[in-house]
Amino acid sequence: MSKANKESFMDKNISRRKLLKSAGIGGVGMVIGASGLGGILAAADSHSISINKDDKDRIPFYGEHQAGITTAMQSSVYLASLDVVTDKKAELIQLFKEWTEASAAMTTGRKVGDHSTNDLLPPADTGEATGLSPSNLTITFGVGPTLFIKDNVDRFGLLSKKPDELVDLPKFPLDALEDQWTGGDLCIQACSDDPQVTFHAIRNLLRIARGKVTLRWAQEGFLPNRQANEQEKTPRNLFGFKDGTVNVNTNDTKESSEHLWVQQNDGPSWLTGGTYLVVRRIQMFIEVWDRTTLQDQENTFGRHRSSGAPLGKEDEFDKLDLDRKDENGKLQIPDTAHASLAHGKGKEQILRRSYSYSGGMDPKTGALDAGLLFMSFQRSPKKQFIPIQERLAKKDELNEYISHKGSAVFACLPGAKAGGFIGESLFTL
Amino acid sequence: MSKANKESFMDKNISRRKLLKSAGIGGVGMVIGASGLGGILAAADSHSISINKDDKDRIPFYGEHQAGITTAMQSSVYLASLDVVTDKKAELIQLFKEWTEASAAMTTGRKVGDHSTNDLLPPADTGEATGLSPSNLTITFGVGPTLFIKDNVDRFGLLSKKPDELVDLPKFPLDALEDQWTGGDLCIQACSDDPQVTFHAIRNLLRIARGKVTLRWAQEGFLPNRQANEQEKTPRNLFGFKDGTVNVNTNDTKESSEHLWVQQNDGPSWLTGGTYLVVRRIQMFIEVWDRTTLQDQENTFGRHRSSGAPLGKEDEFDKLDLDRKDENGKLQIPDTAHASLAHGKGKEQILRRSYSYSGGMDPKTGALDAGLLFMSFQRSPKKQFIPIQERLAKKDELNEYISHKGSAVFACLPGAKAGGFIGESLFTL
Repeated sequence: MSKANKESFMDKNISRRKLLKSAGIGGVGMVIGASGLGGILAAADSHSISINKDDKDRIPFYGEHQAGITTAMQSSVYLASLDVVTDKKAELIQLFKEWTEASAAMTTGRKVGDHSTNDLLPPADTGEATGLSPSNLTITFGVGPTLFIKDNVDRFGLLSKKPDELVDLPKFPLDALEDQWTGGDLCIQACSDDPQVTFHAIRNLLRIARGKVTLRWAQEGFLPNRQANEQEKTPRNLFGFKDGTVNVNTNDTKESSEHLWVQQNDGPSWLTGGTYLVVRRIQMFIEVWDRTTLQDQENTFGRHRSSGAPLGKEDEFDKLDLDRKDENGKLQIPDTAHASLAHGKGKEQILRRSYSYSGGMDPKTGALDAGLLFMSFQRSPKKQFIPIQERLAKKDELNEYISHKGSAVFACLPGAKAGGFIGESLFTL
Repeated sequence: MSKANKESFMDKNISRRKLLKSAGIGGVGMVIGASGLGGILAAADSHSISINKDDKDRIPFYGEHQAGITTAMQSSVYLASLDVVTDKKAELIQLFKEWTEASAAMTTGRKVGDHSTNDLLPPADTGEATGLSPSNLTITFGVGPTLFIKDNVDRFGLLSKKPDELVDLPKFPLDALEDQWTGGDLCIQACSDDPQVTFHAIRNLLRIARGKVTLRWAQEGFLPNRQANEQEKTPRNLFGFKDGTVNVNTNDTKESSEHLWVQQNDGPSWLTGGTYLVVRRIQMFIEVWDRTTLQDQENTFGRHRSSGAPLGKEDEFDKLDLDRKDENGKLQIPDTAHASLAHGKGKEQILRRSYSYSGGMDPKTGALDAGLLFMSFQRSPKKQFIPIQERLAKKDELNEYISHKGSAVFACLPGAKAGGFIGESLFTL
């Protein structure tokens, strides 16, 4: 730690304990080497971009798992799918090191990179988040199938490490996938409660990666503003229905181990503590939906629009009773309803973390270009997402109102310890 | 007022005074007819969609001027440019009446339309804002030149009322306008602190207008989350610079009369109390900017990036001294700097109310598709916006980093009194 850094560090009266806490390394059972600690302290310079000098609105970047997965959903997302253009593994490793450092900085409300103001250089940080709260920013990295093998080439000598699970999803009936929304060697998901902070994160990470990766596709999304609506628990999608009522309880370690995190024996070992992200860019035919009767809408979802309760029930969290019949012997929740098919026999559980998107008008049709950036995290796409989507694709009533335009699968890397870097277990162990 | 409405009204313990206040009709010197008051009271049903039962986060819709012009900028915008497809003036008038009613409902946190839940009909309100705060929603309507004359046809018998000012902007040097971002018979600007509330407003207004108008183009935009950043006054654009430092002071009646609101003698009389909106969709070449030195960036804007102060000054609000020279006799602020050219001799002042936009990746270039949805309100485009833009288009250094892709001019109608409707002075007086 340089003298200048030490002075500014003391100037700010940030206690070491508090610093460690905000860096997310006060956790139970976490061991950090001297180099890791040094990295943290060296980062404690005076160039905070944030007006919040306390821990408010900060989500620790370092930890056993990456943030942005079990983190309570923020109100904006920017998902970037990337293609790697360098063919040098060392450059890729260096990139993940730089991304880790930059992400740790931004998520704690600090600027990216060297903060000397040499005005004969481009600024290290692009500046649009200066003065803004860290806004619960999380940054989550994943690797796609094509990082391991593309056009039959083992690009980075990683093929032996490729998980069997990490393959493109099968083509489902009615899929209308477009290349421009599909696939990717890598992904970065940035989420925060401020679209400007979210944009700043992706933009600066792309900038760091210049010449090594290119943007393949990107999609922003939103949820209702959390600060203004704390009472509202389950956000509504653009069809007006609550979305995400049934979800993995991430506060329950057993549920998370069973459904979310890749376990030691699942293999490969570098992914232990990671998870799989499935992304589906689902266009919603807003105008068609809006001409549909409430009864049809509710039968389509299998839930009441107002309360979110299963049809015939009162409360959003009432149990889905799929066998219950009405007085005429008809299933109360049609077996073609979205909730019924998504639930199936209740075996598959995934952690849904989806956002709405809106991109103005679709110039081809003149209709609103809006929908759902569906994202789910799961331990095994084969055992969880795929069987659910097979049921839905076959006979979900909702298919009349939506179209799957994009698709991608990524293995989300395990978290990094301070001093280490995201991807370390994949690239170097 | 029906008995049912009256009962629910009493149930909620909303005092008449408070209701009048939240409807924005407690203002000084405001006269309302009996029918106007009746309209308000009839609207006080029990179908609030909002969790906020008080006046928090509500901006009055009714008033001398439309809201969303001098309103403190909310953090999200949805601008919709529309083409009228009906050829019946009566339908157009009916549409503005329905829009007025729906806007008054949504801005006070109520659902649109009939709230009976007949499940054999499509719901009157699309539902995605249910449970959300009104989030300071404002809805602002404007009319474009082509509403008055299109293909040499006086479509609605309004040609004699067309303001001389309401014409397409001249083609400026370097303009790269695309049809898909240009023009429009009508516009609706919705702004709120929640993108879901903003989307809901535009979507429901479009739905009401089905068969009468079509969407021509649309653009969403954002600013930093206000709730999290109250200390930060002037938002930064995506080039990292504060944007909007010099602006009309809307708290100063004299300034507003001089620069913002169309006055009685400006003509035509139906627009008195209205204003002109200029929209420019300006693409920003993010990646090019990010390779530019800080010195070049600051010389381009004529301001320091960090503080926002004019070059050579300390404070954001220090006076722009355009004649000041450095020790070598060189102008401290280059005469090609954006701030210098925008300021000119200081004669033209406009009310800027611009938002950043980001639409993922531009599939043609692979670059970020981001920029500024520039919007300014002014009493006279000819005397204010056009001379400024002529100076900028000629030699603004910033032109190297931006491209004007869209353009439109609208006359923003004066405000409506409760019981009246937006557009009343244009269509019926």
